[in-house]
This record gives sequence, C-alpha cells and structure tokens, in this order.
Amino acid sequence: MREQSEQRDEKELQAERLSAVLQAVENRDASRIEALLGTLHPADIADLLEQISPLERSELLALWHGGIDGDVLSEIDESIREEVIEALPDNVVAEAVRELDTDDVVDILEDLDQEGQEKILSALENADRVAVEQALAYPEHSAGRLMQRETVTVPEFWSVGETSEYLRRADWLPDQFYHVILVDPRMRPVGYTTLGRMLSSPVEVLMRDITEDSFRTVKATDEEADVAYYFNQYHLISCPVVDENGRLVGVITIDDAMNVLDEEHEEDMLRLARVGDDSSIQDGPIATARQRLPWLAINLVTASLSAMVISQFDATIAQVVILAALMPIVASTGGIAGTQSLAVSVRGLATRDLTSSNARRVVRRELFAGMVNGVVLAAILFLAGTFIIGDYHLGLVLASAMLVNQVVAALGGVLVPLTLNRFGLDPALASATFVTTLTDVMGFFAFLGLATVILI
Amino acid sequence: MREQSEQRDEKELQAERLSAVLQAVENRDASRIEALLGTLHPADIADLLEQISPLERSELLALWHGGIDGDVLSEIDESIREEVIEALPDNVVAEAVRELDTDDVVDILEDLDQEGQEKILSALENADRVAVEQALAYPEHSAGRLMQRETVTVPEFWSVGETSEYLRRADWLPDQFYHVILVDPRMRPVGYTTLGRMLSSPVEVLMRDITEDSFRTVKATDEEADVAYYFNQYHLISCPVVDENGRLVGVITIDDAMNVLDEEHEEDMLRLARVGDDSSIQDGPIATARQRLPWLAINLVTASLSAMVISQFDATIAQVVILAALMPIVASTGGIAGTQSLAVSVRGLATRDLTSSNARRVVRRELFAGMVNGVVLAAILFLAGTFIIGDYHLGLVLASAMLVNQVVAALGGVLVPLTLNRFGLDPALASATFVTTLTDVMGFFAFLGLATVILI
Repeated sequence: MREQSEQRDEKELQAERLSAVLQAVENRDASRIEALLGTLHPADIADLLEQISPLERSELLALWHGGIDGDVLSEIDESIREEVIEALPDNVVAEAVRELDTDDVVDILEDLDQEGQEKILSALENADRVAVEQALAYPEHSAGRLMQRETVTVPEFWSVGETSEYLRRADWLPDQFYHVILVDPRMRPVGYTTLGRMLSSPVEVLMRDITEDSFRTVKATDEEADVAYYFNQYHLISCPVVDENGRLVGVITIDDAMNVLDEEHEEDMLRLARVGDDSSIQDGPIATARQRLPWLAINLVTASLSAMVISQFDATIAQVVILAALMPIVASTGGIAGTQSLAVSVRGLATRDLTSSNARRVVRRELFAGMVNGVVLAAILFLAGTFIIGDYHLGLVLASAMLVNQVVAALGGVLVPLTLNRFGLDPALASATFVTTLTDVMGFFAFLGLATVILI
Repeated sequence: MREQSEQRDEKELQAERLSAVLQAVENRDASRIEALLGTLHPADIADLLEQISPLERSELLALWHGGIDGDVLSEIDESIREEVIEALPDNVVAEAVRELDTDDVVDILEDLDQEGQEKILSALENADRVAVEQALAYPEHSAGRLMQRETVTVPEFWSVGETSEYLRRADWLPDQFYHVILVDPRMRPVGYTTLGRMLSSPVEVLMRDITEDSFRTVKATDEEADVAYYFNQYHLISCPVVDENGRLVGVITIDDAMNVLDEEHEEDMLRLARVGDDSSIQDGPIATARQRLPWLAINLVTASLSAMVISQFDATIAQVVILAALMPIVASTGGIAGTQSLAVSVRGLATRDLTSSNARRVVRRELFAGMVNGVVLAAILFLAGTFIIGDYHLGLVLASAMLVNQVVAALGGVLVPLTLNRFGLDPALASATFVTTLTDVMGFFAFLGLATVILI
C-alpha cells in the first residue's frame, strides 16, 4: 500500500511539474521554465515534451532551449523528434548532436528526412561525419547501425598492468564501456576481459588469461533482432562487431540491445492488435486514423465473406429467427480461442521457444487443448439450449458448432503464424486477420449448416 | 538474404543437434550426449530441455546430468523447472545451487513448492541460506527479491588508488559488477563510480570526485516493475538497493531488470489476448486448456448479452433476413477498432507515456480518429449497400451503425484501460472483454435498431 501511494505521489509530482511548466509558458517566463526543467534528467525532459500538445511544445521551445542537449534529442520519441529539431535554432541542434556518440547520431538521423539529415551532418566535425555516413551505409536494422564505433582494445599479449597504464593515459575513452577487447595484429577480436576482473587481478597477469567465456562477436550486417536475441539469451553486456573479414569495427552495448528488444515487443503487440507498429501515443488524430484504416478496410472484406456464408442460409434463418441471435456466440468464442492460441504462438516464435523441433508437439497440444475446451463449452451450451431455450435440438446444434469451431480456432492460431514464419514473413503481421476470418466463417458455417440439417 | 540463410543455418544446426541428442537418448549413449551437450552454453542446454517432451526429458536426465549446473537451472523455464529438479539426484541439485548468487537461488525457489524449497535450502551453506531466507521475506515482485546481496563498497573518502588496491586484495567479488558504490559510515550509499572511469583516472583522484550523475537508489520494498522502469528510463546498468533507513542492502543489475521488462511485456501481450500470463509454450494440453477456459466461459456470458440484444429485433430480422447476414460486419469492424485503440493505450500506460497530464488529449484524439475512420468506412458501406445490394436505405443503416460503433470502439479502447488504471487495476487484464462486449452489443443494437426505424 505504501509503495502504491509513493508511486502515486511521484506521478502527481510529475503532473504538477507539467502544469507549472505550462503556466510558465503562458506567462512567457523563461527563467521559471529553466528553474523547473534545468535540473531534470534528459529522459524526463523528453517525456515532458512528449506529453504536451504540439502548440504548447513550440511555444515552450521558442522560450527555452538551453536544456535541450544531445541526450534529450536522443531520448525524445521519434514521432515528434523532427518537429522538435525544426523548432530549435540551428546552432542549438548543432551543439547538441556534436556531443553525442556516433551510434546516437545515427539513431536520430535515421528518422529524419533528407533536409533534416543534411542539417545535422553539416553540424558534425569531419571525422564524426565520416563515421556517421559509414554507419548509414549499413542496411537498416543491422548491427552496423546499432553499434558505436568507439572501442577499447589492447593487444592480446598485454598484461593487466600494461592495460591499466594504457587506459590511464588514454585521453579519450567512450562514456560507457564494460570490457577491454583483446585483438590480434589484424584487429580481429580474440576475447574480452571485464573491467571488474581486471581490477581484481594482479598487475602481472596476462589479459588473455582472464577473458570471459561469454565472448562472442556479431557481424555488422547481422539483423539487430538477432543481436538483441543474443544479448538476452547469453546475458551479454557488450558485444564486439566485426566486418566480413572478422576485423573489429565497433561494439554494441546492452542499452542499445534493450531498446531493440523493447521495439520488437511493441511491434509484436501492436501488429497482433492490427495497429501500424510506428504508431505512438503522441500521434495526431489524422495519423492515428490513417495507421488503423487499412486493417479496418480489410476487415470489411473478410466480414463480407462471413455475410456471404450467412446469406446462404437465409431460408433457415427466416424459419428459425432465434438462430440469428445465437450465431455470434459460436463465432466470437472461436475468435477469442484463436487469438489466445495465436498470442502464445507469436510470443513463442519471438523468443525462439517455438521451433521446428517442437512445432509438431505444440500443434498437437493446441489441438488437444482446443478439444478439451470445445467439449466443456459445448456441454455448457447444450445444457443452456436444452434447459433455458428449451430445445435440445438447438442445444445440440450450438454444442456441435462450438466444438468444431474451438478446434479450428486452436489449430488456426498456431498453424497460421507457423506458416507465415516458414515463408520468412512476420508471424505477427497478418495472423490475426487470417485467424479471425477463419473462426468467423467457420463459426457461422458450422452453426447454420448444422441447424439446417438438424432443425429444418 | 545472406543473413536470412545464415540464421536459417543456425536454426537447422540446432534442430539437427536436438535430433542427434534424442537419438543418443534412445541408444542410451551417455558419452555421446556429453559430447553433444558438454560444451553448450547453459542457456542453450536449457532451451534444448524445454523443447523436448516430458518423457524424453526424464530419459535424458536419467542418462546425463553432468552438465546440469546452477546456470542451467536458472535459465530453464519455470514451467518445467520443478520437473527437472525432481528428476535430478539430490547431490546434483545441491551442488548446482551452491554455486549460484543469492538472487538466482531466490529466483529458482520462488516457483517451487514447499518440499522443493526445503530441498534446496538445506543444500545451501548457512550464510547463503540466511541470505536467501532474508530475500524471501521481502514481498513477491519487490526489489528485495530481485537484488543480489553481494555489493562492492568503499568509504566515500577513498582515492582511486586505495580502491584499486582493495579490489585487488579482495578474495571475493561478485561475478559481474559495474560500479563501486561509495558509502558513508552508516552504510548509506552516497554515489557510485563506474569501473571504466576508475581505470582511466589517476590513482590520487578521490572516488567521490568521479561519481556518476545517473546515481539513484531504490527501496527494497519497491515494486520490481518500477525498478525496471527506472533502468529503462535512465539507462542504468546497476542500482543500489536500500532498506527503510537508507542503508545499502543489495544491488540490482541490468540483466535482472531486463528480465522483469521482458516478463511485463509478455504479461501485457498475453493478457490482452486473454491468456493466463504464466502460460508458456512448454505447458501440457490440460494446463493450456485450463488457462484459457475462464475467458472463453466469460465470453459465453457476454455473447449471450449480444444474443439478447439481437433477439429483441427478431421481428425485424424475420421481415428482412439479409440483416442477419450483414450485422456481423458492423460488430466485427467495431471490435477491431476497439482492440487497436486498446493496444495503443495499454502500451502507453505500460511505458508511462499515457499519463493524467495527456489523457484528455489522447481521449480527444481517439474520438476524432474514430470519427474519421467511421466516416470513411460508413461511406464505403453506403456505396456497397446502394450499388451492390441495391437498397440505399440499407446502405444508410449500415453506414450510420458503422459510424456510431467506430466512435464507441475508439472511445471504449482508451477509456476502459484508463478507468481500470485509475482504480489501481492492471489495464491489460480485463479490458479486451469489456471493449469487445461493448462493440458487439453496440454494433448489433445500432444496426438492428436503425434498421427497425428506417426499413420497417
């Protein structure tokens, strides 16, 4: 209870700060804004900018931009980043991006249009610009885009003492690094040592004698999703990136991998709900409507399929009108069972727990689980039909249609994503449409078909 | 293309290794199993154990358990962990848990029954057992359960040189640590220094002069979800944990936080799909059926609501039978729009992008987006009704019902999770049921009601 109220307090505090900032914007009181925002963490400044309206945002940025540094630009949601960058004076943007590591600059550039990209590239120093352009030459969503090019390396034959001496003299080191990478004379990484291990070892120990078992490299052209999987699977903190010749070109750290995992999760969840995966809470109403319309329009088509199936049985419905009221029960319960099976399967494919090795067993399990639940639900419907509606023939129709549709739903929920995955397509993308179309059509067909045979 | 084929190769390799292992199990060839599994990463051994059937698993473990160490037990999915622990000889389990850090032992113990817990606790040395029991005294899903008790601390007035000397002499240090925590004489943490910063600073520099701005602490009683949020929001690598007096009791590292985030994502995704959130791809058919049945049964009740609404209009349907065929179009498109709005809102609440400060604006956006898509879909349906079915009155009914239901869906999708959240309930848990019930009932009611007024 206490934590709940503390968390609530913090949320209230944030809400109060936000109103105070908006009040200061209205009063055009730049020093008050600085007092409120000046000491905030960049991530919290970014959140605040995201939560106000576009108009409030542009007014705020016109009054105050002293605190908008590179970290704030990195943190800010990509849906409003372009807008913020346009609202800022060129020199503020230039100074902000100059202080960032190359991977963060790349991350910002990726989502900008040509003009915005050039504005930022021209602000960079030559060496940084070349580094950023090289990173952009890697395919989108590749390890090369994700990595930072700043690495800490020593020859593999160095001792802990030599390495410590070297680090102490280095006038430039990345903000965050967790390993020293050992390289051979051709700059190929051969192992790495954690800083903790280094610090707790005698100076005469050789670096190569205290390397970590977890060492593995990824290629710059590897998919970022695979890289994130490695971080998660093998509990990596950082991972060297090599080119096609095995030479070190950069390093990926866990915060970047965590970001990718987060985006992959979001993508799966939103795609399963048939929302465009770049949608966010900051989007305006038109952007929101546009992201969702395609799937709604597709549903008009698939729902027309159901309508056609139903209209085949209009004579039956005309004779027994109660069928029209009951038929959505079978279809909608099937839809939910399909969605359940689908969510578990898509999640299993994403975490690589569902593989070709156990696919057959999972399909069998779904079939069996669908039959079990189908029988239970069918029994309930049979009793309801017999004793509430008072027609055991109708109960029989409801029960049989439910059983059939539960089995179809359970199987469809796993077979559709497995099939999409087999063909190299994202199993989250169109599955929900396929599965609910299947359960709708099958639900109406089984129910009305059986009704025609048994009741008429 | 190349990466795709490489990834496929790796997946094929894994599948082949798995068949080879199963073959060896069938031949009762323990040394072949050791050759295949002996050098694998614990996470990969755990995956392999997860992907085979319970029978195969018990045969494999009876033949070979040399490679089952603490790390494998930690990695293994909780749905089969108890089974694996029961299949292993007591001394193997004892040895495995003895080598783990206390937070990993706690993680394993949490999911076991009383008997399993005692088996493991009795295997631990006294000091470790006390530490584990203390951790278990914290509430479930709290920072106290998540933290490791092994911390690296020095007095705040020490220099880099003194600290280095101390670390070099310490005969015991955690496997992974990224910061040295500075404490006052009462063991209250006052800051921390990254190992990288230490290594690159002259020995005479004081530790307190090179601390990190990112420093923050959490309380042992804080919710683990809040802790994971801090790691994600502020890019933490490790975070000291304090008791109610502000004294250091442990430290949480990023891999634990990443795990929590992963579980939270999974929970949201599965709950939105109305699946019990402890379900996994390893569950047997009966467990699977049982996790899903409650939501299916609830849907029988809510679908009966729809049926009751429809049956109010049986006279209308009897007169115009085509209404029965068309009515699911309005209801199902509404259901999808509601799910879309719901997924974006639940995600926004989870990432704390949807707050009390912008809730009103998001609700307005959803209303407007729902109206835009409602108008577009209504126009399509009006044209289809007029020119395909050839009845512009029917087109008008379809169009108006669609518009109404799209607006209801968009609003319901955001208002339902906001309301649940306001009352301290998980917005992902029952939202889908509320929203689809709303869109079904409203879809049928608007369509048949308007049809009764306009067509009859």
